[in-house]
Amino acid sequence: MKLICKKNDLLSGVNITMKAVSSKTTMSILECFLIDATEGKIKMTANDMELGIETVVQGEIIEPGSVAIEAKLFSEIIRKLPDNDVVIDVDNEYKANITCENAKFNIIGRDGDDFSYLPEIKKEKSISISQFSLKEVIRQTIFSIDDKNNNKLMTGELFEISGNNLKVVALDGHRIAIRNIELNAEYEDIKVVVPGKTLNEISKILNGGVDDIVNIYFTTNHILFEFDNTLVVSRLIEGEYFKINQMLSSDYETKVVINKREMLDCIDRATLLIKEGDKKPIIITIKDGVMEFKINSFIGSMDEEIYIQKEGKDMMIGFNPRFLIDTLKVIDEEQINIYYVNPKSPCFIRDDEGKYIYLILPVNFSVANN
Amino acid sequence: MKLICKKNDLLSGVNITMKAVSSKTTMSILECFLIDATEGKIKMTANDMELGIETVVQGEIIEPGSVAIEAKLFSEIIRKLPDNDVVIDVDNEYKANITCENAKFNIIGRDGDDFSYLPEIKKEKSISISQFSLKEVIRQTIFSIDDKNNNKLMTGELFEISGNNLKVVALDGHRIAIRNIELNAEYEDIKVVVPGKTLNEISKILNGGVDDIVNIYFTTNHILFEFDNTLVVSRLIEGEYFKINQMLSSDYETKVVINKREMLDCIDRATLLIKEGDKKPIIITIKDGVMEFKINSFIGSMDEEIYIQKEGKDMMIGFNPRFLIDTLKVIDEEQINIYYVNPKSPCFIRDDEGKYIYLILPVNFSVANN
Repeated sequence: MKLICKKNDLLSGVNITMKAVSSKTTMSILECFLIDATEGKIKMTANDMELGIETVVQGEIIEPGSVAIEAKLFSEIIRKLPDNDVVIDVDNEYKANITCENAKFNIIGRDGDDFSYLPEIKKEKSISISQFSLKEVIRQTIFSIDDKNNNKLMTGELFEISGNNLKVVALDGHRIAIRNIELNAEYEDIKVVVPGKTLNEISKILNGGVDDIVNIYFTTNHILFEFDNTLVVSRLIEGEYFKINQMLSSDYETKVVINKREMLDCIDRATLLIKEGDKKPIIITIKDGVMEFKINSFIGSMDEEIYIQKEGKDMMIGFNPRFLIDTLKVIDEEQINIYYVNPKSPCFIRDDEGKYIYLILPVNFSVANN
Repeated sequence: MKLICKKNDLLSGVNITMKAVSSKTTMSILECFLIDATEGKIKMTANDMELGIETVVQGEIIEPGSVAIEAKLFSEIIRKLPDNDVVIDVDNEYKANITCENAKFNIIGRDGDDFSYLPEIKKEKSISISQFSLKEVIRQTIFSIDDKNNNKLMTGELFEISGNNLKVVALDGHRIAIRNIELNAEYEDIKVVVPGKTLNEISKILNGGVDDIVNIYFTTNHILFEFDNTLVVSRLIEGEYFKINQMLSSDYETKVVINKREMLDCIDRATLLIKEGDKKPIIITIKDGVMEFKINSFIGSMDEEIYIQKEGKDMMIGFNPRFLIDTLKVIDEEQINIYYVNPKSPCFIRDDEGKYIYLILPVNFSVANN
């Protein structure tokens, strides 16, 4: 095999596929890229058996062939080469000669046949969405998964399509994040659970362009994302997702409208007084026109008032400040609505248009200690 | 004590003095700042007994007094406050109330009398130098100290003043870095060894301005740096520094003039093939008009040629690539001169004006393996 590619084209292929290279494995072939130039295109593939990524690299094929090559080393070599044409020349014993200007590297590759290609995905059920929307919806929900939970369903996100609506849901035992996105067409109903790791990696690869489209294909066991020159295939998580609707409620006793930035900065400051592992709640007291935030730990105490609009009863309620911060960070609106029922029930942060609902469980606190 | 300071003035004081706060100590008072407003100025001080920093913070003293306050917590609180006036109010029991806009923090301070003030330094022997020159000369030499060596002299740098010349020297067992700086006046002869830690910290505080002056005062046991509103005091390292001149030589068999950037990039690439802890040398072959760099490890091999101007004999010599990289990084000249004697003797990288000399010992290598 002999190829000529521009350094930057190779590097962008390397950066994309690197996301599916296994870092902890006893199977050394999973630590490799496959470079396949047998079919008139230069395809670079990585596959850790859960997640697989294939991308096409621009370049010239002088002699067709394929080789599997240690991904980390190859990526570091490409990164450090001068910004010029790179020649990759692999002989019959898979010795790879990488040349750029006066620099010559010799490394040992492996037979491409040892490599597991991506599974074949039937392109039947699908939707189209902009890269921007997909990247945003992942950012706005992924923090609510529990990626260490034994219940695999909590390590993924529900993608539910019905009509022209895509609903994305993430939850751990303490909170739920729900986002609804309007799609550009009506689609068949689909309901799958996508691994959080897949979504994290794909959101790093997406350029996030408003006008760039991702086609997403669904089969029983797999999801395929197709965009730019890249394919990302992932296994789905099996099982019936949680019944979200039973956990939601639109009743409330108290509604607060508050400036998001002020609330976020205030809680962020308060967390200075909590050492890691300490489970001190932040205590929120809602009164007419003002919300008071208090925290009290063995390090010190902090309180701060923020002006609000309030409807309904006064209330005192405690939260894990981390959960509030995570949620406030992903809401772009300047003013937010928070709905409270009572100090033992979850609060809901939601907009009037139904674009998002965030549910957060309160924590118990003893007034005496705070 | 009651003070009003702008958040950013406080923060800059915090950032400067933080460098002398001890992180590993059993004496909790060393983890504190002292805020002293007893003498008409707001002085913030930290002192880990080796290194002490005192800086004046702009602000208004409503009520004089002093307090010692846990440095890390205080710095985090100040950092996260809104960008506005901060009121620090400390009562007789050293409870500190920190207020900014609607945010109120209460933390516990300590009696300022428990705190070790900086040692009194007699301002007799001194020099003046620009912040730019001091910051540069530290950067250009500090990498050659051996901060873990049992010989304390190797953990510091020689500062030797003679006439209008400041010579700064750093060395470990394998290399020497020497920089000469012309001072703006003639000074008394001085020869001291300054701890590397002090120089590292001070170079982070210096703004590096060409027109900003640092006054440096010397006593038998201490060095004092005075600049902007800040004083930095450090103990000196005791003992007679190494006799550098005996290690230098101006004889050579081969002189090479090479492009620094090309040589640095080439060696940087070559190190990809060396895993940490592996002591593979880079082998340099000097021929007419060209220098060849080769590395050969169990990962793979690399070779590259760079065009040079050469005087004298051909030569083959091996180096620890890390040492070459460290040195090349701090030389600003585009073309450098390297002088070689033989494969067992150090090479010298030096300019014609005597501004710098870098000595690097070669390593043994067997030609058969490379």
